[in-house]
Amino acid sequence: MTEQEVQRKLSELAKRRGFFVPSNEVYGGTAGFYTFGPRGSTVKRNIEDIWRDRFKLKEGNEEIEAPTVMPEDVFEASGHLETFDDMIVKCPECETSSRADHIVEDNTGIEEAESFSKDRIEELFEEHELKCPECGAELAGEKVDDFNLMFSTNIGPGDSSPGYLRPETAQGIFVEFNRWKQYARNKLPFGVTQIGKAYRNEISPRNQIVRVRELTQAELEMFIDPLENEPDLEKVEDVELTLYSRDEQNKEEGEIIETTVAEAVEEEIIESKWIAYYLGLAKRWYQRIGVDMDRFRYRQHLEDELSHYASDCWDAESEVDGDWIEITGFGYRGCYDLKKHQEHSGEDFTIFKEYDEPRTEKKAVVDPDMGWLGPKYGDHASEIVEELERMASNQPEVFNEKADLRIKIGDKKFTVPVDKTGFEIKEVEKNGKRILPEIVEPSFGVDRIFYTVLAHSYDEDEIDGEERTVMRLEPDVAPVEVAVFPLMDKDGLGERAEEIHKNLREAGFSTTYDNSGAIGRRYRRQDEVGTPYCVTVDHQTLEDGTLTVRDRDSTEQKRINQDRVDKVIAQLVTGERGFEDL
Amino acid sequence: MTEQEVQRKLSELAKRRGFFVPSNEVYGGTAGFYTFGPRGSTVKRNIEDIWRDRFKLKEGNEEIEAPTVMPEDVFEASGHLETFDDMIVKCPECETSSRADHIVEDNTGIEEAESFSKDRIEELFEEHELKCPECGAELAGEKVDDFNLMFSTNIGPGDSSPGYLRPETAQGIFVEFNRWKQYARNKLPFGVTQIGKAYRNEISPRNQIVRVRELTQAELEMFIDPLENEPDLEKVEDVELTLYSRDEQNKEEGEIIETTVAEAVEEEIIESKWIAYYLGLAKRWYQRIGVDMDRFRYRQHLEDELSHYASDCWDAESEVDGDWIEITGFGYRGCYDLKKHQEHSGEDFTIFKEYDEPRTEKKAVVDPDMGWLGPKYGDHASEIVEELERMASNQPEVFNEKADLRIKIGDKKFTVPVDKTGFEIKEVEKNGKRILPEIVEPSFGVDRIFYTVLAHSYDEDEIDGEERTVMRLEPDVAPVEVAVFPLMDKDGLGERAEEIHKNLREAGFSTTYDNSGAIGRRYRRQDEVGTPYCVTVDHQTLEDGTLTVRDRDSTEQKRINQDRVDKVIAQLVTGERGFEDL
Repeated sequence: MTEQEVQRKLSELAKRRGFFVPSNEVYGGTAGFYTFGPRGSTVKRNIEDIWRDRFKLKEGNEEIEAPTVMPEDVFEASGHLETFDDMIVKCPECETSSRADHIVEDNTGIEEAESFSKDRIEELFEEHELKCPECGAELAGEKVDDFNLMFSTNIGPGDSSPGYLRPETAQGIFVEFNRWKQYARNKLPFGVTQIGKAYRNEISPRNQIVRVRELTQAELEMFIDPLENEPDLEKVEDVELTLYSRDEQNKEEGEIIETTVAEAVEEEIIESKWIAYYLGLAKRWYQRIGVDMDRFRYRQHLEDELSHYASDCWDAESEVDGDWIEITGFGYRGCYDLKKHQEHSGEDFTIFKEYDEPRTEKKAVVDPDMGWLGPKYGDHASEIVEELERMASNQPEVFNEKADLRIKIGDKKFTVPVDKTGFEIKEVEKNGKRILPEIVEPSFGVDRIFYTVLAHSYDEDEIDGEERTVMRLEPDVAPVEVAVFPLMDKDGLGERAEEIHKNLREAGFSTTYDNSGAIGRRYRRQDEVGTPYCVTVDHQTLEDGTLTVRDRDSTEQKRINQDRVDKVIAQLVTGERGFEDL
Repeated sequence: MTEQEVQRKLSELAKRRGFFVPSNEVYGGTAGFYTFGPRGSTVKRNIEDIWRDRFKLKEGNEEIEAPTVMPEDVFEASGHLETFDDMIVKCPECETSSRADHIVEDNTGIEEAESFSKDRIEELFEEHELKCPECGAELAGEKVDDFNLMFSTNIGPGDSSPGYLRPETAQGIFVEFNRWKQYARNKLPFGVTQIGKAYRNEISPRNQIVRVRELTQAELEMFIDPLENEPDLEKVEDVELTLYSRDEQNKEEGEIIETTVAEAVEEEIIESKWIAYYLGLAKRWYQRIGVDMDRFRYRQHLEDELSHYASDCWDAESEVDGDWIEITGFGYRGCYDLKKHQEHSGEDFTIFKEYDEPRTEKKAVVDPDMGWLGPKYGDHASEIVEELERMASNQPEVFNEKADLRIKIGDKKFTVPVDKTGFEIKEVEKNGKRILPEIVEPSFGVDRIFYTVLAHSYDEDEIDGEERTVMRLEPDVAPVEVAVFPLMDKDGLGERAEEIHKNLREAGFSTTYDNSGAIGRRYRRQDEVGTPYCVTVDHQTLEDGTLTVRDRDSTEQKRINQDRVDKVIAQLVTGERGFEDL
């Protein structure tokens, strides 16, 4: 089976069984938007819950929920207004807008045209005589523009308060940083997580659910003191990583490196211990939810591929539909974001870090002679004092030159002899210092992880000569944990099965009940949605109180007593007991 | 304590302890947007999970997740583009836009001005000499306009594809109805739920978290055959309801009716059994999550208060901050929505309902004489046939008049003798019929329910002469189930406490650990976030392995063995065992 066949079959199965469907099809569809059906929304939420358990609860981080609509100030500061762009070209004939770099990639052998300049793309249009993908008109000579990928709107009446749908959940965490530091009692490190919608107004969405306009992110913003905080590397040191480093990508014949977290840090393949820590933690998590480790790797961003806020970044990539796609970014954002928001808002985002014991530090101060300065410069005297204070802390060396200081304020120039400044180096006792935390950010793309899990779970096999499709989902990722059937809906079998179904549902299992059609067809239906266990009530149940439990993967059946069914199913789905041990 | 004092204190506590904060305060704030902090987001999610358990799982309904951005077609069909408006007036002096009906309500004795016409509001501006709430300028003579409350945006480049942030999650369920009916195998009734964001671009948001621009809804759309499906009323027949019916509201001295679900249906106080069923179910649910039933009622909408899609509606209302606010709407939407989407999309949204056995039904048909019609009317003949078919099924009686039929198509008129139409009433055998389901919709406002639960849980009391603030939250609604403290952080108490904390966390409890400050202050902190139980490790723990468990409400403490702590806490938080029985 080729990857393309799997893709087509999975897409059909997704519609038929309620995993995901293109949205608004009755109105012709809206490119880039998908609706999760009953089965899909459950799988997606299961993945989110397992993420929360791992990256929030077990790590001792806190979760918040910020709005999806944010005002312009935020994105002016974050840099998204200026740099969150894709390159666009408009066809002179049919007026269709297309992604300029994609036209280059799709019609030449060139890769990663995204990192090229607009001029270069325009040149390539001419060189390769590229054409509009919609109508075939010549694009040579057409202008390539930046298109900002944020959805814009107006908050309140009129257009005086522009707002945007957030392009990442992270900004909602950053702008409220001063609250979070208060709740953390000013102690670094601490982590804040958020699971929620983010938006990207793609020029021309494609690859179905992989490149969408509305998506769900699960983000962790870890605020650290880079000089003092270290992650608990021991916890993950033995985790084996599949790494495709920048150096290897830049080689003619670059190679994948297989190594452990500890070695990757030791050999400086991964620069930041924090990034290494999260790559290890996440690797185990992907495995746990059912990502196939033979179709998984970590790839470091190339220099010109880095986001405007990141100094380093590794992507988790999975292979689906024959392509490698980014499913998570592990970015080292440094103090970029807090610094930008500090500058734009005028608020202090630093944390006061107390020393273990007070330290004596040297500090340059001025104490200008106002009796001289006042009469001489009148109204400008106070501005001059401010400037002298600034110079004392930033360029104390100029006060040693013993010459007259030249001071420029706006257009005006002033001269002040050093001996009128009262400059001196004082010893001051300090209890601590103010630092701006740095940020390490694992940012998970939930929709793509969801799709990867489905694609890697898809399987076909043959049971007793009959072909079947089976989704080999982990029991706690699957939309239904246990299905209950009466062998047939007569002789009281239906009533007994309904009773058992009700009990299982009330015991907290996700269940389904099915009494229609041949039993074989009912098993096939459950195989297609990945239900790990089916329970069937038959005539023997009425006689001796036993029923059958069927295992999805082996299709084997075993009889157990109906009174033990909730206990047995609980053991099976948690993995406490294997089906073979029943 | 007045309601206003509680409001102020709760708002301070919400900021101090991380329940909710106004968003983007570092940029001056964005009216109508709130961020849920660590404590608040957990409480909110707990409420959502308990809702899901009750209205999805226990009812056997299915959950889906649709996009929050939807194309214009959807809202043209749904009626939101035309009617989802508030009345706006712009001040001629300061140009501030305000809600016109609120200005009337706030400055006259008049209530529910929302249902007045724009002309009437303009008259009231003159009569009462009303002024701009911002600058005090005269508003007499100013024009009152409609302002559409949907946030608008553009999907993709350019402005050729307008999109809107959905004003209710429901539309994402309706447009995909044909998928849901397929998954339900065309059997009515079935229910589809969705928990997600909805948006309302309020003109001037107020009442802090009660009237926001971005909110979370938990909606259930129940698709029914009104002629054949009935809810399981028995399940809730004894539930006591506090009802404020339309009739009572219209009386001079209207009264609240206290009655059971069964009686309310019997006496036709509630017209629809389905609405009555959900009022009963929801009443129990509100009680369970901690809404105070002395500050709760169901109020029926007045005629002119009904949404454009609803034929009847009851609101659940809670009393907070001294006002009654709507926290849930129980609407009878009928077939309004499916009909509208069917008309606008041209898709068939009906369900084929099979009869138990085939029925013979009469059907009016035509078989026009084309030998006469063709030569006589040429190119128009086929249009005339279509019109005759339409007339046969809609107005069969006109064919009995034996006169010539007059047919109008566009501007043109034609005459056809009845005997050329081949009209006859045929007997046809039918296996079933196509019906358009009707919709009953309980729509829960999660943010307002969240706020109600906090407000109704807020309490102050005195313990041993010391005042304390305590949030009396239900154990599974509270953000933390159990807090763990070492009495002091020395002599190995800290290590032991950390170990116990870790075990509780891994057993799946939501926990917190606190070792800073006097033990009394630590208890106060937990009281403020509503933590039902605190576990303290002291010197006796090291000697005999016992520790103390403290009950939030009584502040009583009991010693238990540390090996039993997870079992005891589990019993306490599920209510399986009371603290007094320890």
